Amino acid sequence: MPDRTVTFWFDFISPYAYLAWHRIAGICARNEARLALRPVLFAGLLKHWGHKGPAEIPAKRAYTFRDVARLAALQGVPLRPPARHPFVPLTALRVALPQVAGPDQHRIVDTIFAGGWAHGADLGDDEVIARILTEAGLDGPALVAHAGTPEVKAALRRSTEEAIARGLFGVPSMTVGDELFWGHDRLEHLELHLQGRDPLAPA
Amino acid sequence: MPDRTVTFWFDFISPYAYLAWHRIAGICARNEARLALRPVLFAGLLKHWGHKGPAEIPAKRAYTFRDVARLAALQGVPLRPPARHPFVPLTALRVALPQVAGPDQHRIVDTIFAGGWAHGADLGDDEVIARILTEAGLDGPALVAHAGTPEVKAALRRSTEEAIARGLFGVPSMTVGDELFWGHDRLEHLELHLQGRDPLAPA
Repeated sequence: MPDRTVTFWFDFISPYAYLAWHRIAGICARNEARLALRPVLFAGLLKHWGHKGPAEIPAKRAYTFRDVARLAALQGVPLRPPARHPFVPLTALRVALPQVAGPDQHRIVDTIFAGGWAHGADLGDDEVIARILTEAGLDGPALVAHAGTPEVKAALRRSTEEAIARGLFGVPSMTVGDELFWGHDRLEHLELHLQGRDPLAPA
Repeated sequence: MPDRTVTFWFDFISPYAYLAWHRIAGICARNEARLALRPVLFAGLLKHWGHKGPAEIPAKRAYTFRDVARLAALQGVPLRPPARHPFVPLTALRVALPQVAGPDQHRIVDTIFAGGWAHGADLGDDEVIARILTEAGLDGPALVAHAGTPEVKAALRRSTEEAIARGLFGVPSMTVGDELFWGHDRLEHLELHLQGRDPLAPA
């Protein structure tokens, strides 16, 4: 039996991760794969590889926002970007770690993505994060407080280091065993892979 | 009547430009658009924006070649990468400029892309370029000699500067009027645009 776990490596900073979030659970469900969610600090990947993110190059930043608007419109995904961008996503990412989110992880990730990218919330503001989690029926203040502990801070660093060790350089990335698919644009290839139709790695 | 010219900005260094080359003429033909070919020095774009290309980041380089192999297999495009990569593409690009290629431009671009990416020729070697052009029925040595003149060198610099002024940061890029589509992955959006079905810029 091949590996049926898809690991979704993401940062709330990335609009492409938001777009992919709308599709990844469906891809896993219809291909009978388990979905594992791994928050990582995109800025940590960039720093490690000495690279710049799309938002750091003026022409690419302008193009990216237009590209994302086009993709969202074509896919019927609501898009109202965060009040500030870029923002510091540390608290949002830490709250989404399995160590903090526990069995509510999927709901927490969904709440933060939707709050920031469908409703324009400021995901760099701890009080905003606590509020949108509370509005979703979770204990927002307790989650945010837990996210600020040294153990959880170390867990996010570890997650980012593991991503680097795996050769990840961007988000979203999807891994299945040793196979890497980078970007919202490669969800189709991920699905072919799960179906045993990947020309490079047939099941 | 909207603008019906698609400008294809490319560098032979890019495997994604090669993959896009296989599709761009067909997209233009079936949407009654004119195709204009613009060689630009990708390294010049990177230098201007202070960015790194995929080949400069070890993990991304490895991923990119695997990604390109997968795309080529899925699209039925022959792929045997150039003998050396990266290589200095200056002569190849200069030969492909309209000032040098004249009415043979499409055939010259096709010959160089195929020589390098389908047959593994070393596109950084002037003698190799002359030979593959000659094998295609062109006057290879004369074209390569013309490419080395100061006027032609200046023309390639100008082409790259114009790309930067247009806000281009990568190759392949496709422009239609003021609209930019970046990357092989956005050929579908280019086609929607030509068909008046672009949600951001309906015809």
